[in-house]
Amino acid sequence: MSKSLSVIKIGGNVVDSPEALESFLDDFVALTKDRILVHGGGVMASQTLRQMGIEPRMVDGRRITDAETLKVAVSVYAGWLNKTIVAKLQARGCNAIGISGADGGVIEADIRPKKPIDYGFVGDVRSVDVKFLEMLLEQGLTPVICAVTHDGKGTLLNTNADTVASSVAKAMAAVRQVSLVFCFEKNGVLADPEDADSVIPRIDRACFEKMKASGAVSAGMIPKLDNAFAAINAGVHRVIIKNAANLGKTVGTVIKNE
Amino acid sequence: MSKSLSVIKIGGNVVDSPEALESFLDDFVALTKDRILVHGGGVMASQTLRQMGIEPRMVDGRRITDAETLKVAVSVYAGWLNKTIVAKLQARGCNAIGISGADGGVIEADIRPKKPIDYGFVGDVRSVDVKFLEMLLEQGLTPVICAVTHDGKGTLLNTNADTVASSVAKAMAAVRQVSLVFCFEKNGVLADPEDADSVIPRIDRACFEKMKASGAVSAGMIPKLDNAFAAINAGVHRVIIKNAANLGKTVGTVIKNE
Repeated sequence: MSKSLSVIKIGGNVVDSPEALESFLDDFVALTKDRILVHGGGVMASQTLRQMGIEPRMVDGRRITDAETLKVAVSVYAGWLNKTIVAKLQARGCNAIGISGADGGVIEADIRPKKPIDYGFVGDVRSVDVKFLEMLLEQGLTPVICAVTHDGKGTLLNTNADTVASSVAKAMAAVRQVSLVFCFEKNGVLADPEDADSVIPRIDRACFEKMKASGAVSAGMIPKLDNAFAAINAGVHRVIIKNAANLGKTVGTVIKNE
Repeated sequence: MSKSLSVIKIGGNVVDSPEALESFLDDFVALTKDRILVHGGGVMASQTLRQMGIEPRMVDGRRITDAETLKVAVSVYAGWLNKTIVAKLQARGCNAIGISGADGGVIEADIRPKKPIDYGFVGDVRSVDVKFLEMLLEQGLTPVICAVTHDGKGTLLNTNADTVASSVAKAMAAVRQVSLVFCFEKNGVLADPEDADSVIPRIDRACFEKMKASGAVSAGMIPKLDNAFAAINAGVHRVIIKNAANLGKTVGTVIKNE
């Protein structure tokens, strides 16, 4: 069996809260197997834009990235947030290296088509360089990847952090037994969205189809679960959806085919 | 004889000008030997601070880095500028990797003593991890280093880019024949500061002492030359001071001991 790897994604709720981040990183360094951290950080980018007198623009919850917004997004994601996380991991004895998709040319993306909506400098992942990531891991390094990619022609692109995490997980599945872990603010996929403790411990494809048909899964959760099954179909061993505060615990929802 | 390496430093005059940067990067990728690029970029950091309503504070030409300034400096240096350079090198077929001193723990620094002047989050380099840089070079990667370091305890520090370049050059001299190249806006060390063509092609220690005694070197150039000789005393093969527009040409001032 191939060596295991966890690809762990954290979003704004962890990255933007100093206490949540410190506690998450304590749990992260305690993990014994190889791991890659992927982080978002939209809240700080929006704050910085507003401080600079630029009003963030969103369509359907997705950011419109004009030239000025790209500059701020790359600055905040690849600069402050990425290096803050790396410095904090180094302080904990974890040999982290922070990278964007441009570094080592690791994640190439295509700029999203301008129709029907022009999202600006937003990239859809085209390829992930497995050899480069494998080389870093073999050197004992822990990659910390921010949600910035490039088109290979010199242009940086803002890319959804969930997509970066699942693209990395799917690519690495060629050489590793990959667990893809989405950390968010809830305890997992909930049977009852009003009840934080109603976590469904395990979902397989058949179970998910039944839940969709009966309306037993909230509308917001469907794209997350669709993405999870797409990752599994692409060779990822399992997807785990859990609360960032529970990284060290075997709780949350495990998504597997069998 | 050990393998050669160029450590090339560019400052704001290149990084802040799109045309100068494109032209410099064309010359940079044409170099055939191994190289490390170190970049500053103070102008954009100051602009961003002003856009955010923060007035940059300088004492004796050195930036006072409070918590808010550090955030902007790390964002701009390690984020936008570093990744812009990396993406442009990747587009030219150069396998660049952008790093700060925190990444791979490569450059550790001590926060500068608070007396006589409290510069805030400013670091003086303590150590450079030669093995890490050598590993990147052996993998065919071209390191692009921004002037941000860390203290090993989780704090990022703003660090002078000239100091980062000479610290990297001095450390790498243990395993390589290192040329340290300072690119700036003049053609080299000038015999007559008013005459751009009066470049002194070669300066050795005896010549420099004579120039200092006779006042034949401008006050602003003395610390640069002192640093150059310090690098040579620490094992750097030669230091070159030249115009960034002339990277590909054997012009400028070469500083060597013999």
